Amino acid sequence: MPESPPLQEVESLEDRLDQLVQAGNIDAISELSEELHPSDVADVLEALDEGQRIRLLSSLSVELASEALAEMEDGEDRGDLLAALEPAKGAELIQELADDDAVDLIGELEPDEQSRLLAAMSVEDAGELRELLEYDEETAGGLMTTEVVSVIGSLTAGEALIEVRHQGREVEDFYTVFVVDGTHRLLGTVRLDHLVTADTESRVEDLVEPVPASVPPDLDQEEVGRLIGRYNLASVPVVDSQGVLLGRITFDDVIDVIEAEQTEDILRLAGVHDEEELRQTWTESIRTRLPWLVLNLITAAVAASVILFFEDTIAQITILAFIAPIIAALGGSSGTQSLAITIRRLTLEGPKATRGFVAKEILVGLVNGAVLGLGLAVIAQFIPGGTPLLGVVVMLAMWVNQIVAGFAGAFIPTTLERVGVDPSVASSVFVHTLTDLCGFFLLLGLATWFLL
Amino acid sequence: MPESPPLQEVESLEDRLDQLVQAGNIDAISELSEELHPSDVADVLEALDEGQRIRLLSSLSVELASEALAEMEDGEDRGDLLAALEPAKGAELIQELADDDAVDLIGELEPDEQSRLLAAMSVEDAGELRELLEYDEETAGGLMTTEVVSVIGSLTAGEALIEVRHQGREVEDFYTVFVVDGTHRLLGTVRLDHLVTADTESRVEDLVEPVPASVPPDLDQEEVGRLIGRYNLASVPVVDSQGVLLGRITFDDVIDVIEAEQTEDILRLAGVHDEEELRQTWTESIRTRLPWLVLNLITAAVAASVILFFEDTIAQITILAFIAPIIAALGGSSGTQSLAITIRRLTLEGPKATRGFVAKEILVGLVNGAVLGLGLAVIAQFIPGGTPLLGVVVMLAMWVNQIVAGFAGAFIPTTLERVGVDPSVASSVFVHTLTDLCGFFLLLGLATWFLL
Repeated sequence: MPESPPLQEVESLEDRLDQLVQAGNIDAISELSEELHPSDVADVLEALDEGQRIRLLSSLSVELASEALAEMEDGEDRGDLLAALEPAKGAELIQELADDDAVDLIGELEPDEQSRLLAAMSVEDAGELRELLEYDEETAGGLMTTEVVSVIGSLTAGEALIEVRHQGREVEDFYTVFVVDGTHRLLGTVRLDHLVTADTESRVEDLVEPVPASVPPDLDQEEVGRLIGRYNLASVPVVDSQGVLLGRITFDDVIDVIEAEQTEDILRLAGVHDEEELRQTWTESIRTRLPWLVLNLITAAVAASVILFFEDTIAQITILAFIAPIIAALGGSSGTQSLAITIRRLTLEGPKATRGFVAKEILVGLVNGAVLGLGLAVIAQFIPGGTPLLGVVVMLAMWVNQIVAGFAGAFIPTTLERVGVDPSVASSVFVHTLTDLCGFFLLLGLATWFLL
Repeated sequence: MPESPPLQEVESLEDRLDQLVQAGNIDAISELSEELHPSDVADVLEALDEGQRIRLLSSLSVELASEALAEMEDGEDRGDLLAALEPAKGAELIQELADDDAVDLIGELEPDEQSRLLAAMSVEDAGELRELLEYDEETAGGLMTTEVVSVIGSLTAGEALIEVRHQGREVEDFYTVFVVDGTHRLLGTVRLDHLVTADTESRVEDLVEPVPASVPPDLDQEEVGRLIGRYNLASVPVVDSQGVLLGRITFDDVIDVIEAEQTEDILRLAGVHDEEELRQTWTESIRTRLPWLVLNLITAAVAASVILFFEDTIAQITILAFIAPIIAALGGSSGTQSLAITIRRLTLEGPKATRGFVAKEILVGLVNGAVLGLGLAVIAQFIPGGTPLLGVVVMLAMWVNQIVAGFAGAFIPTTLERVGVDPSVASSVFVHTLTDLCGFFLLLGLATWFLL
């Protein structure tokens, strides 16, 4: 009887695998792999070069090889690996997978490679996969599996259990039994645990529960994740406009989506636009980051060009060259704070979450700006050239710029979301440019006005 | 037979609720609520003031009221609400909940309020909750429920199903049947769907599967989330050092953890330290953000003070006051890019993911820095006072600062993680201070050296 290995033992197994990977000993890895979870085998694959990957995949059981391939990270050229296999071998691996995982993998191939692989499969399997390939991979249809367990409402619990037993042999990882009418329209669900614990003579239609949510196939995957998280669903049904059950999406796919979407949000806020960046090589990283940095160079230069108009002022009051970057930096910090909060709420709760948000951020900027302005005015008194009047100018510039930062950090992403642009993409550049520009202009304008 | 409502209908129900909430019509809300999912009722509660909340909770069925209370956001003063209820009512709601949700709620009360509530419960329930309260709420023990379905390995599938039926009446939302030996040590799991689809005469021990992961009760919740996401588990068992099954953690708790941890990462990167900020009022937001901004004011002033040492240089070459903030801004941007990538990998994959990361970021900085340096040098040629030699100085300062940014963005969080400090907390300040300081020093130092 297999015992669950304690965490300690898994660690040392990892070390042994590391050594074998370093040594490129594929045969020994293959032998060890049969005891591993597919996710762990996926890690091993990621550490190997392509030739080694192909040898390892070929030497593993079809079941383990296919699952491991499916569990590899998206950025790891799974498509290239699949394309490099013999078409017959590739088709064998794909057919072994649940259809949602199969479609994810095939989706990474070039069109001609897809056709070659589909041609090597049974007509039925290929047809099913072709249908699923029609859906955008970032929608509910792209996430769903058509492999569901469903029973008709008029059965008894006992009859339904026999039916579930029968269908369950074909379907992996099902948690929910869907209840449909004669035309396959979704009536609701009956939880497997309820079916098992019910009297065998009771009718399924008396046990049926309405689904808290069902989704159309074209719903964005981010919205699907929100629903599953909100209602704690192990799986959510996908239905067409007539209410006919098309498939289901399970929590594990959604955990991946939530992680991917959040990674996207974080990286975009930081000016890294490609969600696959986590796994990229350094040359790929340059390609994804440099365009944003160049844009940033231009916007920073535009904002700083305000300084050029006030060269005379700076030449006479050089302490302003010390103050200006501080006001710009704090504007950027506050703007980023507002931005992060706003984008986070937009991601977790959708657009309606932002009611009253701009007003709140302006209020926060009003108070924080007063404190920071006063602080910087005091600091300026200790610098040679710092006068009380300069303190007032510094204070005003910081104060107003903080209010601008709060406003921009909340208003820009909310507006972008309303007009249908992903707010995490461009907000950061807008906000920083605006706070730099305003900061420089306020400080140098006020200084020219009051101090010269 | 209840039909699943199409999305459209839910929207209009929402509108009706909105109107009732605006009007404060608690009786009508209460009537409508009985048709809603507890998560939706939780939203309604969040929109009401405390007096209205208490009236609504008192008028709902105990089952719905308790679930709705459990589904309210953490930041929404659920503890205050619970404390404001009659102790008998509060105890009734708590006892209705699964023990993990009950502990979460009780954990938000002050110690004396906890005692009062526990005293109003049955001795048995109170004892169980007291045991769970011992665990840190951010660990596996704090997330787990002790309500598990478990069978002894020597039973037949048929006997096990009867046992599962019996235990299942008491346990909510179970997806996995745990298999234990006579001393309650975990042997593995048998999936409910496998048990249902197996021949009734087969032995459970022949169906048992090893668990891909089990966790000790003191494991950090972030690590629990990583394991569940990695192995696609509907639930993960919690075992003590002897392998005795203590409880289980289900995917829905983990989705909440993943969302909370990622929110924390995003907000901390942006300098907002409190994970509850999403729901805070504007005064609370000021309290959580202002300390970080004040720290930021100090570090920005320290970095900018470099400029004071070069006042003469700036007075003579005022174009430097235009160049300096651009070099600092781009250093901050590149540093944030490295930082976001590094922190994201640390969160998703743990410390071992960062091997070779610092070297990669330095390489990226080397190339991006060359391009950006050249770009800014060219821009400088169009500004009055821009000379080829100034171009060289600008180019060098930008270049070296970009390498520093890449290095700092990868090295600082990795090092903080190694010494056991959460890298998302302080990295951003360190990196920005360093890139500002280096940027100013490089530009003004080189300019003083070569141009004066």
